[in-house]
Amino acid sequence: MLWSGWGDPAKAAPLPEGAAGLLRDLLGVRTSDAAPAELSEIAVPAPRLGAEALAALAEAAGGTAHVRTGAEARIRHTRGKSTPDLLRVRAGEVSDAPDAVVLPGSHGEVAAVLAACAARRIAVVPFGGGTSVVGGLRPEGAAAFTGVVALDLRRLDALVSVDPVSRTAVLQPGLRGPRAEALLNEHGFTLGHFPQSYEWATVGGFAAARSSGQASAGYGRFDDMVVGLTVATPEGDLDLGRAPRSAAGPDLRHLVLGSEGAFGVITSVTVRVRPVPPSSAYEGWRFPDFERGVAAMRRLAQDGPLPVVLRLSDETETMVGLADPGAVGGDLPSDPGCLMVLGFEGEIDPRARAVLRDAGGEPLGAEPGEKWEHGRFNAPYLRDALLDAGAFAETLETATFWSGVPDLYRAVKNALIETLAGSGTPPLVMCHVSHVYAAGASLYFTVVSAQGEDALAHWEKAKHAANDAIIAAGGTISHHHGVGTDHRDWYAREIGPLGAGVLRAVKDRLDPSGILNPGVLVPPVPQE
Amino acid sequence: MLWSGWGDPAKAAPLPEGAAGLLRDLLGVRTSDAAPAELSEIAVPAPRLGAEALAALAEAAGGTAHVRTGAEARIRHTRGKSTPDLLRVRAGEVSDAPDAVVLPGSHGEVAAVLAACAARRIAVVPFGGGTSVVGGLRPEGAAAFTGVVALDLRRLDALVSVDPVSRTAVLQPGLRGPRAEALLNEHGFTLGHFPQSYEWATVGGFAAARSSGQASAGYGRFDDMVVGLTVATPEGDLDLGRAPRSAAGPDLRHLVLGSEGAFGVITSVTVRVRPVPPSSAYEGWRFPDFERGVAAMRRLAQDGPLPVVLRLSDETETMVGLADPGAVGGDLPSDPGCLMVLGFEGEIDPRARAVLRDAGGEPLGAEPGEKWEHGRFNAPYLRDALLDAGAFAETLETATFWSGVPDLYRAVKNALIETLAGSGTPPLVMCHVSHVYAAGASLYFTVVSAQGEDALAHWEKAKHAANDAIIAAGGTISHHHGVGTDHRDWYAREIGPLGAGVLRAVKDRLDPSGILNPGVLVPPVPQE
Repeated sequence: MLWSGWGDPAKAAPLPEGAAGLLRDLLGVRTSDAAPAELSEIAVPAPRLGAEALAALAEAAGGTAHVRTGAEARIRHTRGKSTPDLLRVRAGEVSDAPDAVVLPGSHGEVAAVLAACAARRIAVVPFGGGTSVVGGLRPEGAAAFTGVVALDLRRLDALVSVDPVSRTAVLQPGLRGPRAEALLNEHGFTLGHFPQSYEWATVGGFAAARSSGQASAGYGRFDDMVVGLTVATPEGDLDLGRAPRSAAGPDLRHLVLGSEGAFGVITSVTVRVRPVPPSSAYEGWRFPDFERGVAAMRRLAQDGPLPVVLRLSDETETMVGLADPGAVGGDLPSDPGCLMVLGFEGEIDPRARAVLRDAGGEPLGAEPGEKWEHGRFNAPYLRDALLDAGAFAETLETATFWSGVPDLYRAVKNALIETLAGSGTPPLVMCHVSHVYAAGASLYFTVVSAQGEDALAHWEKAKHAANDAIIAAGGTISHHHGVGTDHRDWYAREIGPLGAGVLRAVKDRLDPSGILNPGVLVPPVPQE
Repeated sequence: MLWSGWGDPAKAAPLPEGAAGLLRDLLGVRTSDAAPAELSEIAVPAPRLGAEALAALAEAAGGTAHVRTGAEARIRHTRGKSTPDLLRVRAGEVSDAPDAVVLPGSHGEVAAVLAACAARRIAVVPFGGGTSVVGGLRPEGAAAFTGVVALDLRRLDALVSVDPVSRTAVLQPGLRGPRAEALLNEHGFTLGHFPQSYEWATVGGFAAARSSGQASAGYGRFDDMVVGLTVATPEGDLDLGRAPRSAAGPDLRHLVLGSEGAFGVITSVTVRVRPVPPSSAYEGWRFPDFERGVAAMRRLAQDGPLPVVLRLSDETETMVGLADPGAVGGDLPSDPGCLMVLGFEGEIDPRARAVLRDAGGEPLGAEPGEKWEHGRFNAPYLRDALLDAGAFAETLETATFWSGVPDLYRAVKNALIETLAGSGTPPLVMCHVSHVYAAGASLYFTVVSAQGEDALAHWEKAKHAANDAIIAAGGTISHHHGVGTDHRDWYAREIGPLGAGVLRAVKDRLDPSGILNPGVLVPPVPQE
């Protein structure tokens, strides 16, 4: 993973021909004259953990090889992959660097590390792929602790077992998406979970952040796939899930799913798996406007047949062609309509075509669908190229019930446009719907603008306005990115003071010294 | 509802011809000579609530008409509808009777009643249809409180709103199943939730106990249908659910679902609804043995097509014909095989027939399916007739992953047979699978025996042995009946001490004086 950006540096893609001119003409983007920092020249804060603490951590994690204190390891575990995170690290600002990176290799070692940290009041930031885009890896109130360690789970990377009868598999949390798929494929199974972060994010992160993948219409969200969880906490272990579903009290799995490392460290995940499909087919459709495209999606979501992949870009996203980042920079069509991509396993279901045609859609054939499929993990690479070119690019997302989708769409889009225009960096705001349910859908926004005088400050203002708009319009503060520290205050508004009080009570029970991911999900100091 | 049994007394069914002889010959059932008590002659305990408390409750609930202290009201709110509950109340034993029945008519009145009770240390037992079969309406440690009220939610019986675009509806908790269906049908929608308790159980109870209905294969469990909840607690309100699904932290709806009145009182439920299907078709199939029938169900659950209704009786249940209670008492066939009933909306999917045939099934045509559908809510009426005839009849259920189903089936069946035979009342133990998931299924056991010397003591021993067997075999202590007080200690083993600690922490936050359904779900006194 590129320390200052996304993914495999070998896959870095330059901005397509003509894109720079388009960005300049359309958004006033100017090439930045400040070159990104060099990794070797970044000054990390003085480490706070002494020899005794480091020795205790090494003993807990199975040896000194599993405790790293070098500058590069610390920088590579500093914050996540939101655009503000990248802008800060590109500028060499790593004030949130952990004091050490600890790599336990088993459930027992995770538990031992937590015990060692609780005894010494060392904060622990669980670290899977490091792909959080909501400040989920940025501890708050670090000064209240004697140090901060990143708990890197990469050594916990085994497929523990497969139950072909029940079609379940036990996965360790440090498995990255492609590796988990490859191991399951050997048994003829697939997880079917392909979020945009797929190449780098881990199974533990999928669970801890309630991830949702591009095939969610067919395979469900990651939290739908989880049937069991093992969790290490400073107060002991949780081992949950004796049946797919149960009436034995509240479903505590749903308290761990989405807990983002604030309640404990997930050390194994039992997931539902499915046979690898023999083939998949993708297809593009054009709708005259977003409203009619959304109505068509709703029909498929409510009455079927439901594709495995279903996404719809609004007019702006369709126009800019961000659904196919490789094509950015072409001439902008004047009336692009809205592009829908659908994917089925096997063949495209003809009944779906009939629904889409009836809803005002026009078939575009396989090519747009296959182009989307081909470039489905590319957007984060494109962001690096945009940042290099002096542009600002970021995403945010929400969800609500179908009847609320139009208002939520307008409210968030307007909030982003108004605040960024007011800051002198008028943006392009694009949106797509990529996760549907019988009762509602998600909205995923992409914002591109000039960086302007102070991109971080401009974005903070715009993001806060978007968050306010989401809450005011009745949406959820996140459909699949999570809460982290960035969304925490709006999340508290979403669930209300008593909901926040319940989270605090659970946190206090499982993590009484408050060492786990401080500031994430729950405010760092009780504030009820 | 019959105070001493099930349902509408006008629907009471006598035991079919010949059944008494069969019970005598097969199980040694002897007609009891003790006639059930008369309602008017039962002595209720002296009420403990004084004039001040009753006045405060009346003010909270909107008037003295909404606080009832008469003997009949108190008896009708004593415990639930498990067989031990019925045996006790039939014997005139109502030591658990609440001191008063309070009927609030709004969320605000519920909250006011909770406040009045918390201030006076009065225990509150939320009461919907009163159909708990797991001791969910039997407060423990009542002596530690100044009194006990049953909080009857029958006045909260409105369909608040329907959102036809999102296909959701807001229901009040006191709505009974048929009334909720009728109100939704007026809008063209159905909930599709038909548990055996359907005629009497309420929407609030469905949510609080994680109910699962007979059409769960097609419509999902009740907890799958819930997208929003409003809850009144002694510490304030919870208002949850801004989108069908979210990544904004743990899903707190799943902490309320299954909380059985121990955390708060559900005052509204937002559910997913579907258009009323034009028609349904049912069909019976015969499998040579339970194992092959279960394998066939698994194929439908994992690869489809999934019927709306799917159930399979084991050899004993098929033989006795309890799947069609009206037929009990006929000659017992020597090799009945296992009866499967499947139901589809519209026509039976021919692909399902192909799967069943391939799995060793033999079609029996529509009649067995239609007979099941016709008698689907009759079993609890039959139980009353069995009790009247001197027999003992009770049910219990569990669930696990497919690979664990055979062992769980054997372990529970053996535990029941061995303990009851050891007590001198050898039972018939029947089983069916009626809820399936991709990863597993439920097992539902029906036990019929002679009452013997002390039916309550015999059953307690057998039930504990079955619970132990469930936990030892890796099953969940309940798939859809819930925890109540009866399963509480095994539930604590299922989720472990830290899981139980989390529940206690949540309970302490929402109900610090411990007035809500004491002893249900969480031990009445902190025991960690």
